[in-house]
Amino acid sequence: MQETRDHARKLMEKYCRVCPVCNGRACAGEVPGMGGLGSGTSFIDNVSALAAIKFNMRLIHKVVEPATELRILGKTLALPIIAAPIGGVSFNMGGGISEEAYIGAVINGCKAKNIIGCSGDGVPEFIHKSGFAAIKDAGGHGIPFIKPWEDEELFAKIELAKATGTDIIGMDIDAAGLITLRRMGRPVSPKSVEQLADIIKKCGVKFVLKGIMTADDAELALAAGADAIVVSNHGGRVLDHTPATATVLADIAGKVKGKTTILVDGGVRTGGDILKMLALGADAVMIGRPFSIAAVGGLQAGVEKYIDILQSELKQSMVLTGTESAAAVDGRILFTAPR
Amino acid sequence: MQETRDHARKLMEKYCRVCPVCNGRACAGEVPGMGGLGSGTSFIDNVSALAAIKFNMRLIHKVVEPATELRILGKTLALPIIAAPIGGVSFNMGGGISEEAYIGAVINGCKAKNIIGCSGDGVPEFIHKSGFAAIKDAGGHGIPFIKPWEDEELFAKIELAKATGTDIIGMDIDAAGLITLRRMGRPVSPKSVEQLADIIKKCGVKFVLKGIMTADDAELALAAGADAIVVSNHGGRVLDHTPATATVLADIAGKVKGKTTILVDGGVRTGGDILKMLALGADAVMIGRPFSIAAVGGLQAGVEKYIDILQSELKQSMVLTGTESAAAVDGRILFTAPR
Amino acid sequence: MQETRDHARKLMEKYCRVCPVCNGRACAGEVPGMGGLGSGTSFIDNVSALAAIKFNMRLIHKVVEPATELRILGKTLALPIIAAPIGGVSFNMGGGISEEAYIGAVINGCKAKNIIGCSGDGVPEFIHKSGFAAIKDAGGHGIPFIKPWEDEELFAKIELAKATGTDIIGMDIDAAGLITLRRMGRPVSPKSVEQLADIIKKCGVKFVLKGIMTADDAELALAAGADAIVVSNHGGRVLDHTPATATVLADIAGKVKGKTTILVDGGVRTGGDILKMLALGADAVMIGRPFSIAAVGGLQAGVEKYIDILQSELKQSMVLTGTESAAAVDGRILFTAPR
Amino acid sequence: MQETRDHARKLMEKYCRVCPVCNGRACAGEVPGMGGLGSGTSFIDNVSALAAIKFNMRLIHKVVEPATELRILGKTLALPIIAAPIGGVSFNMGGGISEEAYIGAVINGCKAKNIIGCSGDGVPEFIHKSGFAAIKDAGGHGIPFIKPWEDEELFAKIELAKATGTDIIGMDIDAAGLITLRRMGRPVSPKSVEQLADIIKKCGVKFVLKGIMTADDAELALAAGADAIVVSNHGGRVLDHTPATATVLADIAGKVKGKTTILVDGGVRTGGDILKMLALGADAVMIGRPFSIAAVGGLQAGVEKYIDILQSELKQSMVLTGTESAAAVDGRILFTAPR
Repeated sequence: MQETRDHARKLMEKYCRVCPVCNGRACAGEVPGMGGLGSGTSFIDNVSALAAIKFNMRLIHKVVEPATELRILGKTLALPIIAAPIGGVSFNMGGGISEEAYIGAVINGCKAKNIIGCSGDGVPEFIHKSGFAAIKDAGGHGIPFIKPWEDEELFAKIELAKATGTDIIGMDIDAAGLITLRRMGRPVSPKSVEQLADIIKKCGVKFVLKGIMTADDAELALAAGADAIVVSNHGGRVLDHTPATATVLADIAGKVKGKTTILVDGGVRTGGDILKMLALGADAVMIGRPFSIAAVGGLQAGVEKYIDILQSELKQSMVLTGTESAAAVDGRILFTAPR
Repeated sequence: MQETRDHARKLMEKYCRVCPVCNGRACAGEVPGMGGLGSGTSFIDNVSALAAIKFNMRLIHKVVEPATELRILGKTLALPIIAAPIGGVSFNMGGGISEEAYIGAVINGCKAKNIIGCSGDGVPEFIHKSGFAAIKDAGGHGIPFIKPWEDEELFAKIELAKATGTDIIGMDIDAAGLITLRRMGRPVSPKSVEQLADIIKKCGVKFVLKGIMTADDAELALAAGADAIVVSNHGGRVLDHTPATATVLADIAGKVKGKTTILVDGGVRTGGDILKMLALGADAVMIGRPFSIAAVGGLQAGVEKYIDILQSELKQSMVLTGTESAAAVDGRILFTAPR
Repeated sequence: MQETRDHARKLMEKYCRVCPVCNGRACAGEVPGMGGLGSGTSFIDNVSALAAIKFNMRLIHKVVEPATELRILGKTLALPIIAAPIGGVSFNMGGGISEEAYIGAVINGCKAKNIIGCSGDGVPEFIHKSGFAAIKDAGGHGIPFIKPWEDEELFAKIELAKATGTDIIGMDIDAAGLITLRRMGRPVSPKSVEQLADIIKKCGVKFVLKGIMTADDAELALAAGADAIVVSNHGGRVLDHTPATATVLADIAGKVKGKTTILVDGGVRTGGDILKMLALGADAVMIGRPFSIAAVGGLQAGVEKYIDILQSELKQSMVLTGTESAAAVDGRILFTAPR
Repeated sequence: MQETRDHARKLMEKYCRVCPVCNGRACAGEVPGMGGLGSGTSFIDNVSALAAIKFNMRLIHKVVEPATELRILGKTLALPIIAAPIGGVSFNMGGGISEEAYIGAVINGCKAKNIIGCSGDGVPEFIHKSGFAAIKDAGGHGIPFIKPWEDEELFAKIELAKATGTDIIGMDIDAAGLITLRRMGRPVSPKSVEQLADIIKKCGVKFVLKGIMTADDAELALAAGADAIVVSNHGGRVLDHTPATATVLADIAGKVKGKTTILVDGGVRTGGDILKMLALGADAVMIGRPFSIAAVGGLQAGVEKYIDILQSELKQSMVLTGTESAAAVDGRILFTAPR
């Protein structure tokens, strides 16, 4: 993996430093680029909130070979991991590889390891075009994400997404904060629950709504018919000073767990981070920037290697907390300070 | 804006570093200059307390084009922003431009963008003279601020302020801590509620009292007849180790909201900061140092550009929290950690 | 004062850096020297705990010329300040001036400004000899401090202290932790309440017990007949990891306020720090290291100048909090975070 | 001691920096080596949690010569200190001395000072072989530790350990997280309470179980028949993001104090740290890295010198808190912040 990371550091020069821990500090404010918006703290806090959560280490039990597979959104995944939708290699990552090579590495690497990857959307057109093509080439094994466009653009893209053969479509509704897109005459916007219900109905496949940060919005997503939500602050790239996703996850899970699939992203880097998110109430996690680094630095092989490492780390943390299955993680594996 | 800031950095050399985030750390103790008094923490904490406040990001709603205008002190402002009273370009900002050019840029830039600016007071005389002249030239569109002088000086200045044509006068009562002025034979001092009532009556126009940091003082200001208070620790320049204004604002608003207009300054830098202050209970904010940097670096054009940026940021943060109008901000857009 | 500090920095080279804020960080672990023991945090926390206490700034009141004088231990002091007992110029401060010149500057500077200074004790003999001589020369205006020796040494020193003409004697009982003295055959030790009562009786003058860090010990000191206690962790020089004196003061004052005189040292640097300690329950403060720097760098004139600055700062902070008299400070001038 | 440390720094170059305070920051992630796993915070927090605990300093009492000896596990120790099991000089410490020289220095240094040392286990074979030999040479005065191997390897090693003549055997069950060993075909694993009971029965001597981090596991260890537990996160080397041992100790002691012997390691560096752990509920402490540095840098003489320093520090902190005996430490010597 070190070689992949070194190669990525060279290709992503001035866009991503490939830090020892990817924590948003060095790249604060670098949007476009890989950083968080403004002070960068919405990204930074995602990582530090996760780091502040501690495990109850336990060794007197029978868990020796824990099971990491689980079933969500009608699919069986080998691990509770989805590669998050990220696009724009040229202006976010330095353009060291093409958009097609990038998204192909992500989609195919995930498929090879029996998990699933997402494709991104945006301006210019080649972002979603490359993504849709990669998913189609993978036999529909991928989740195409669409931004919350206004008017006809949205419905036209939904048709293109469905044509990939996928049975899951996603929308990162938190991208609605991008006023720059509106000024380019390509408006994105929040959606009412009625509009969302209409969109989901038009999709006609399983629907993932990304950008939920409150229990209220989670319930509205449920009401609109979303099959899954992603607790996400868009990697800290749309609004400065949001809480960390790990901070709001338990409250959201307390409201909608079991009624919809709960995904979460934001600062997940290691197998231990994954286990923490599951213990807080997620069914699975999305991982963003580390997959980008793996794909830019090592293409499909880099993506696969990173998944292997995550699996090994996840298993070790499951053994050391006595967690038998990733599909049923007990919240009590997390340490709570005595009062 | 970058050009304006670079130019300001050159003109303000040794007085202000025009840091990426204006947070009071590099300039701690630099009074005169742009810093906070002593340890500088009264300034520093203003910024860090605001940064610690987080937003509940929400995207499932109908707010697409939020309204930023509001009516306070008998005026309609395009944005809930007032440029704070700052003077002394020569000894605080390096003297790269004249006092007249400075205050003219602030007053006229605000007027052009349909908000309002304040002028400062102090020793030497040209500070208030330049300020009063700028407001008069702007047809009275500005708020002249007067320090809490003792005896006749105060009443003489009130007459001069009224002669500008303004219908609002302000006093920064927290300047009363400046023992140096007393030693120069120009004493300033706290005022009893009776003295304040007398001063406000003599003004005969709307009166803004700046330097309120407790609910008790807010109620006394109300009793004395103030039309508006400004929750302010004078940018951390009169007393080391006060709480941040964002820390005391909610408590003060809990006592006097709706009975007087509540303004607040201290660490407000971005549109997000403005929205936070409104959510904590302010009707509008005052912004100080960033306007000084914009005026020194770019004159009126710099001031106008900064206001444009604030408007764009404010709108984006309103969209991402589902806030329809700056005149009615819901406190629940702020994140409260679960217990 | 800057000149005095620059001169001190030269004379104290390698012993004290005369930092902008004297906070124990640069000199952590430097004992002998001017630092705190071990990690230095008992010293560091004294300063940071004080800094974390915030003032309720208030300007609507009648306090324009606050009174700083007060009566304690049978004396009227112009300010609630006592110079703490510090000795050992040669091994703690670099030996740039003689022990006699040092303690003379402290004792006489304090007397000239109508406050009072203390002399220190230790090994070698010239520490207490210089101190006793200085107090005698000042007509007994000073407080000789004696370490908690075992056996006859203690009583012999008490007689020498009384011979200075003073009517107050102090003991820094917290020095009992110095095992090095025991190994040199000069044992110091804790004292039982009965032993203390006996010592106080033998003194026959007012007695100040320094080194109280719990409410329990404060009550035992009271039972033994101490006229005053000093809440002190010996500047962080005897036990690593004690709480800050500002942290334990309110609890101690809650138990013995009004029954004995409460003094406190530890991190007091400015007039604002003094006012905080009074608001927490102290009757007056002791200040250590800053007096040493003033004396080494400027002799008696340096000490007097430092006292003038403290008075000016104290008055300004009293005005800005509406505090009329240092003899009756209201705890509500300190900010308490709302729950 | 300075000489020993300087020598160790040279011999351990690139493996251990022998920092002024051994706190896990400089070596974060260095496994193999002397650091903590991953972010290193499980190691770092051990140290910082201990540092955050403060003493109630007390001087009015009769404790002048405190007693440090105590009886645990059928032995009388001069001090409540056990040298923790650490092995692998070549790959963890730079190989400046041989494994035999290292473990001999630890075991014999401890014996000479009337405390006790442990030997480690692992791959390659010479780690446990050198350890067992050293304990045998010391007449069985030492505690051989065995990793939680699966199958026959475990029972074969128990027999070898018993052949040293010891009457105490230990197991660091937290080593079960080392997936690398499993991949080398040398599997280690958690144990059920039934398996543990069987192992303890087969040992037939006193049994110490190391790696307990929850009250639940402590009770299971008790149920399995362990004579002592060691509250330990393996120095932060097996699972990133565990709480500090000082953080979980009181809760564990609340459940099993008096029913089994409670040992604890993790960040213990000084006599003050030892006293804190006893006040939190431990019967004695284990110390790891500092003994390694002492042994590498000064062999047996270095180990003995370090024990002397610990004794002197422990006594001083006992005097300054009024603690008469290490065998009966009152939890109230620790400061609790008032609410």
